[in-house]
Amino acid sequence: MQKKYLMTPGPTSVPSEVLLAQARPMVHHRTPDFNKVVRDCVEGLKYVFQTEQSDVLIFAASGTGGMESAVVNCFSAGDKVLVSYNGKFGQRMEQIAKVYGLDTTVLEYGWQQVVDPADIAGFLKENPDTKGVIVTQSETSSGVLNDVEAVGRIVKDYPECVLIVDSITGIGAVDCKTDEWGLDVVMTGSQKGLMLPPGLAAVTVSPKAWKAYERSTLPKYYFDWKKYKKNLEQDTTPFTPAVSLMIGLAEAIKLMREEGIENIIARHARLAEACRKGCEALGLELFAPAEGRGNAVTPVWVPEGIDGKKLVSTMKNKHGVTIAGGQDDYAGRIFRVGHLGYFGDFDIIITLAALEMTLFELGYAFEPGTGIKAAEHVLLGK
Amino acid sequence: MQKKYLMTPGPTSVPSEVLLAQARPMVHHRTPDFNKVVRDCVEGLKYVFQTEQSDVLIFAASGTGGMESAVVNCFSAGDKVLVSYNGKFGQRMEQIAKVYGLDTTVLEYGWQQVVDPADIAGFLKENPDTKGVIVTQSETSSGVLNDVEAVGRIVKDYPECVLIVDSITGIGAVDCKTDEWGLDVVMTGSQKGLMLPPGLAAVTVSPKAWKAYERSTLPKYYFDWKKYKKNLEQDTTPFTPAVSLMIGLAEAIKLMREEGIENIIARHARLAEACRKGCEALGLELFAPAEGRGNAVTPVWVPEGIDGKKLVSTMKNKHGVTIAGGQDDYAGRIFRVGHLGYFGDFDIIITLAALEMTLFELGYAFEPGTGIKAAEHVLLGK
Repeated sequence: MQKKYLMTPGPTSVPSEVLLAQARPMVHHRTPDFNKVVRDCVEGLKYVFQTEQSDVLIFAASGTGGMESAVVNCFSAGDKVLVSYNGKFGQRMEQIAKVYGLDTTVLEYGWQQVVDPADIAGFLKENPDTKGVIVTQSETSSGVLNDVEAVGRIVKDYPECVLIVDSITGIGAVDCKTDEWGLDVVMTGSQKGLMLPPGLAAVTVSPKAWKAYERSTLPKYYFDWKKYKKNLEQDTTPFTPAVSLMIGLAEAIKLMREEGIENIIARHARLAEACRKGCEALGLELFAPAEGRGNAVTPVWVPEGIDGKKLVSTMKNKHGVTIAGGQDDYAGRIFRVGHLGYFGDFDIIITLAALEMTLFELGYAFEPGTGIKAAEHVLLGK
Repeated sequence: MQKKYLMTPGPTSVPSEVLLAQARPMVHHRTPDFNKVVRDCVEGLKYVFQTEQSDVLIFAASGTGGMESAVVNCFSAGDKVLVSYNGKFGQRMEQIAKVYGLDTTVLEYGWQQVVDPADIAGFLKENPDTKGVIVTQSETSSGVLNDVEAVGRIVKDYPECVLIVDSITGIGAVDCKTDEWGLDVVMTGSQKGLMLPPGLAAVTVSPKAWKAYERSTLPKYYFDWKKYKKNLEQDTTPFTPAVSLMIGLAEAIKLMREEGIENIIARHARLAEACRKGCEALGLELFAPAEGRGNAVTPVWVPEGIDGKKLVSTMKNKHGVTIAGGQDDYAGRIFRVGHLGYFGDFDIIITLAALEMTLFELGYAFEPGTGIKAAEHVLLGK
């Protein structure tokens, strides 16, 4: 018997309360009972996204569907957009923008750099006809946190330019004040901070984004925002929703409201700090730069002389602890610990203990127990 | 949000597979489908109890019900029995025997002593008309493991004396070879090594115990073994069984067969050793004597100057980790860590990390991380 632990940046583990809610008998979605579920989900997501002025639309789709919906609902072919990224998932927005024929400029940073808002400001000054700025808040592949608040301050001076934020790995882990920071479109996926299985994408749409929608001529049907907004007025959805996931979401939101969004973010910050300090105490080097480390995932360099793929596979096969490896150029060179969503103190302890035991077996020279000690101090606040 | 961890010697945590099996729609117990459940449970328990010659009877009752059933089915008022114990639960057998008017002699040991089989041999030599010897294999209150194999060798020379073994906290955690060791009646409860919620008691009955049954004149109805045996021939029960618990038991047994009983016991031995070594590395003193430490629960002395009740309550309230305190004379003086049933490596790590953080907060002088380090070495076998 081996217990399994999922310590990846999505899918993340799901609370029993949510799993059991999803196991309830199927209900029809065109019923007053399910209308209440839709209402609870939407109101709850507004709370989580910290928005009153934006609509929140929910799609039966993965996060990528939410990303695509932003492009097809805000733009027309030939529109000038600026995509800035520092990792694999930011790059996906470039691909989507190009597929739809947008006039796409890319600000590409290294995976260990943060997006510099000054570069965005510079571009907009030279290109005041830009229709959209697209940025990733919390990059899953690199663990880098970008300052979308600063980008918001810049973009808000351009009334016809919308700011689109991929916060798929951000929402529920790092602070994201949608209204206050002037974020027009923010999206997340269910298998992250929302503590659900994958299958839902949630997207916020600000009044400014609705104006962009009115101008947009790109073809859209399943992801047509207006259809969802119109149906939401009757607490329903234009197409068959993912019923069980929505019921699970209503339950997850109940848990999130009980804890409070500020406390949730503070918990993630604490766990991320414990993970970082634990890894550093083992003599490991963090991948993300000090000026931009998110709370959702901690990427760490595989130490010299250790086989990175073997490290990840030993954690999983011998100890039952699944973490993520590096992607693209960093495959085998970094490993990534997720601490996002339904995570508590002892998930960090488990991961560090599994890491210590794995490093010990792979012949890495260090003092076992030191990673745990450092984490315990952070967790105790002492 | 605080995750909860149950590290007590019963109830113990229940695998998701078993919880979900219990959540299946209710079925009627007089049906072929449920007959199969009964059959699977009985065959599976024979495997777990390592018996072919004994019947295994299952009661909708707690472990105490199983204990009482042994007394009322094996004896008559005035029968001479020897009860030996070294803890709170062994004492309960004395109380039951006395309630039913048995001529009860007690061999009482301190909670930190093992039962000495030579004392039992001596008593039987002087009292060859003894009808029963009652002993606890794994004492929950003291963590002491008694050598029931040695007692079996002694009692088997007395053809009219049955050996009754309370293995409520033993089965599935320590080796218990019912047939090979000549144990006539062995009992367990569902909320221990069987990885279920409380509510079922399982009792083995050897051919020798059936002979005792034939002689027994004590009144019995709900716990009348013969009723259960007769119904088992039709794969059913005399009274309404605890349907969900039985369905859960069939599932738990599937998991136990997959792992294999020898591996299950070896896992428990390994986890107990990791727990003990972890505690000792923190400078704590183990309660149970070196010659009789079980795999199910590790009682530990609360160190000088630390409030034992506060230790347990801090673990629970601040860290979400429930361990047990001491009982009777040892309340506040020892704490007990359960590692019984659905337990893996990281449950020991969690418990030790919570213990380290708690001791740190309570001002105990030690080096955080050292307990984990010692446990990691045991878990790695290095």
